Amino acid sequence: MTEQSWRTSITKVEPNKLTVRGYRLDELIGRLSFAEMVYLILKGEVPAPAVANVMDAIMVSSVDHGPTPPSTLAARTVASTGASFNAALAAGVLSINRHHGGAIEGCMHVLQRAVDQKRAGGQDAGEAAVSVVRTARQEGRRLPGYGHRVHTHDPRTARLFQVAREAGVAGEYVEMALAIQDAMARETGKELPLNVDGAIAALLCEMEFPTELANAVFIMARIAGLTAHVFEEISTQKPMRQVSPTAHQYVGPEGRKLDGR
Amino acid sequence: MTEQSWRTSITKVEPNKLTVRGYRLDELIGRLSFAEMVYLILKGEVPAPAVANVMDAIMVSSVDHGPTPPSTLAARTVASTGASFNAALAAGVLSINRHHGGAIEGCMHVLQRAVDQKRAGGQDAGEAAVSVVRTARQEGRRLPGYGHRVHTHDPRTARLFQVAREAGVAGEYVEMALAIQDAMARETGKELPLNVDGAIAALLCEMEFPTELANAVFIMARIAGLTAHVFEEISTQKPMRQVSPTAHQYVGPEGRKLDGR
Amino acid sequence: MTEQSWRTSITKVEPNKLTVRGYRLDELIGRLSFAEMVYLILKGEVPAPAVANVMDAIMVSSVDHGPTPPSTLAARTVASTGASFNAALAAGVLSINRHHGGAIEGCMHVLQRAVDQKRAGGQDAGEAAVSVVRTARQEGRRLPGYGHRVHTHDPRTARLFQVAREAGVAGEYVEMALAIQDAMARETGKELPLNVDGAIAALLCEMEFPTELANAVFIMARIAGLTAHVFEEISTQKPMRQVSPTAHQYVGPEGRKLDGR
Amino acid sequence: MTEQSWRTSITKVEPNKLTVRGYRLDELIGRLSFAEMVYLILKGEVPAPAVANVMDAIMVSSVDHGPTPPSTLAARTVASTGASFNAALAAGVLSINRHHGGAIEGCMHVLQRAVDQKRAGGQDAGEAAVSVVRTARQEGRRLPGYGHRVHTHDPRTARLFQVAREAGVAGEYVEMALAIQDAMARETGKELPLNVDGAIAALLCEMEFPTELANAVFIMARIAGLTAHVFEEISTQKPMRQVSPTAHQYVGPEGRKLDGR
Repeated sequence: MTEQSWRTSITKVEPNKLTVRGYRLDELIGRLSFAEMVYLILKGEVPAPAVANVMDAIMVSSVDHGPTPPSTLAARTVASTGASFNAALAAGVLSINRHHGGAIEGCMHVLQRAVDQKRAGGQDAGEAAVSVVRTARQEGRRLPGYGHRVHTHDPRTARLFQVAREAGVAGEYVEMALAIQDAMARETGKELPLNVDGAIAALLCEMEFPTELANAVFIMARIAGLTAHVFEEISTQKPMRQVSPTAHQYVGPEGRKLDGR
Repeated sequence: MTEQSWRTSITKVEPNKLTVRGYRLDELIGRLSFAEMVYLILKGEVPAPAVANVMDAIMVSSVDHGPTPPSTLAARTVASTGASFNAALAAGVLSINRHHGGAIEGCMHVLQRAVDQKRAGGQDAGEAAVSVVRTARQEGRRLPGYGHRVHTHDPRTARLFQVAREAGVAGEYVEMALAIQDAMARETGKELPLNVDGAIAALLCEMEFPTELANAVFIMARIAGLTAHVFEEISTQKPMRQVSPTAHQYVGPEGRKLDGR
Repeated sequence: MTEQSWRTSITKVEPNKLTVRGYRLDELIGRLSFAEMVYLILKGEVPAPAVANVMDAIMVSSVDHGPTPPSTLAARTVASTGASFNAALAAGVLSINRHHGGAIEGCMHVLQRAVDQKRAGGQDAGEAAVSVVRTARQEGRRLPGYGHRVHTHDPRTARLFQVAREAGVAGEYVEMALAIQDAMARETGKELPLNVDGAIAALLCEMEFPTELANAVFIMARIAGLTAHVFEEISTQKPMRQVSPTAHQYVGPEGRKLDGR
Repeated sequence: MTEQSWRTSITKVEPNKLTVRGYRLDELIGRLSFAEMVYLILKGEVPAPAVANVMDAIMVSSVDHGPTPPSTLAARTVASTGASFNAALAAGVLSINRHHGGAIEGCMHVLQRAVDQKRAGGQDAGEAAVSVVRTARQEGRRLPGYGHRVHTHDPRTARLFQVAREAGVAGEYVEMALAIQDAMARETGKELPLNVDGAIAALLCEMEFPTELANAVFIMARIAGLTAHVFEEISTQKPMRQVSPTAHQYVGPEGRKLDGR
């Protein structure tokens, strides 16, 4: 059987020469930040510096959420059995799905449809948002990206949008995400503020990321937090312990401040 | 049964407040790069800016190596079955082991023992390196981090060390890594230059990373390349195709240059 | 925080006493075959002996399909990196999805709807089958469970149905599966015989398995084949080899016969 | 690049003909039980009927241990995030390692060395066992396969050995496993009876399974229990619930009896 040759546009490998998206890798090392490299390898272009800041902000905001998310618990549970480090990370990666992290992709779809509808109907953001909220209520659907189990006001949302505004990246998707938040409050009388997933969804829409990559962007960031948890598990805990999802306490440093940045 | 409370020092979660390693996450967003955040969450400290450059360089250098590594082939093979995106990434993560990426950890052990021996024995780097090479030859062990299937001179090595020197991070581990390279050439008559795994090993030693994290640092970088490959697979290829490890060609852009950085 | 107690109906664990679905495990050991145990733990009842034969037949038929399926290639690729045995198996498990093994679940849905339609419409199987085939053609959908990349007549299908008939398990789902095969041949002029996935789908419908378990039944059987492949890979092949999906040859025994069964 | 052809001895795939270990698969369907098929594909030979009973007994004994093992908790945690069924199973598979299931392989090594030593030294089993126990105590090593977190007398052990004796499979490895149990009691004054892992280890030694397959044999059995748990999780529980490792209760049937077997 002859095998069919297949085509790829990501990385060219030649002896002593590696080219990623057309750039020599040895020229990128030391010149691009990792977040810029992530953007380049996924989108094919080096981002403008302001856009790179938004990419960094998105990834920093997603890095960890303590011991309670199922990805953390799964990774620590697997680590406690004597698994290899990467097997524990893989279990964490397998936990990032529709109900955990998946709201980013879901909210991107909501925002894209809402902005499309606004443009097509000659509406303003507020009108389109009310329509989106009413339709969802009639169909008994929750809108992904709003509300949070722990936070009534997710501290990451406002900061992400501030960075995006400073970078000139906040446009009609950010506007729409906030308009839907306001429309929900008015229509339902309940506050369900935009959470970090919804904020990231708006920014990935602004940066024209395909929705298929939403989950992966979250994973690329969260795997750093999972790494910290797996390392802490194997360094400080006994094997085969019962990893309680609720009975834990934070015993690390508090109240530190970044100086001079 | 009452459950035993367990302790963690990574992230404190309170309503509307997240603290990572003692810093408020909303203050870090927009101020730290993702590579700095990775360093902070793994090591507990914000790196100096020069060290952050080295962290970025390490992660950029590891982002991808085209379609041939088994992690890429496994991820694309799983993706071709209609798997969820994260399942394909998990298969890639499961492929990063002793024979693929594992040389970083192996080389860290070699360099740490060699530097310990140098210090204990009052030797210089060259003397300790010759001793390391001779012992390995006598015991029939290959030294991890040297030689490469494709590259006679890995283009990433020199560039990584240049960045490290500019950052003031290159010290006795970098010296030792090169001394062993020279000793191997003299002792064996064969050139087996330091590869990217060996270079990263030296830099992680300089930055005092525990060896247990070596594999995870590689995974955190490579997962971006895996993401690009999985996305390309599902966007451009038919399901259930046979993913040949050899019959493929690069059809993307070439010869691009970074301007003004 | 107090943790909410949750309920399970599978296995009761007491000191020196294990009860699975209400039966003491030590009484089951030596009395139930593994296939009967699988049936018991999934369905909550010990199967009649004839039904147990069908369960064994399904699992035996799915055990392996040589080196070409993506689950085998993914498992061997991961194994070649020095992964732990279970990590290689996990990569294989992650490969069993919509396009690989998933036709069982898809075909169960087709057969259930067709039989429901037959009953509701007072049709015979042939009439309902023609209607199913025509609708699928109009909507441009392929019917899962028919046709095979390698086999024009899947040798497992006829044998599975023979075992089912001898066991008295073949009823209206088997009838419908064959009626659709015939209707497709007449409507399209092309032979797309029922494959092993379709045959298993019909039998799982006869045994009233929920469709959600279809993929898992295949995995429970195929993991034995994956185990054989991973063991062969690590016993006979070099690490980090390129696992070609096409360039391989069978070098084992041939032409053996079961005596006296 | 031309690709190197590789060799396999498991399954030959030809159009309309599948041969596993030299036997036509369609002739095996309906004639072999699944446990016999597992034995055949792993060992290359159809087992004698009595040996097949032992294989069934091993797999039945390992099928489940309720909600507390980390593989169950990891699989349920991943399932609760909306993962695909196979991703949840993969997380369970990734949890079966040194500290969970791994005692089978560890105990096989102990028994093989002990029996080798007995033969080489012209000792009887009791003498070799005392020597094994004393050496382990001196070196501060626990002997894998003895003692259990829940059971002071593992109910599966005696029953497995009874089945093995009836099958004529119990030989010097079973004798040694019990001799070590007795020697431990005498030497330490503490009862640490052989657990199910140790019993399976002895039987796999009797059947000449390679130690590398120990973990996989356990996984092939336990994946049925994991399947039942994942199905129960998605059928009866809310997504993103906190899966407590301790706060659960069994609410299924009790006190059932197998009739007439």
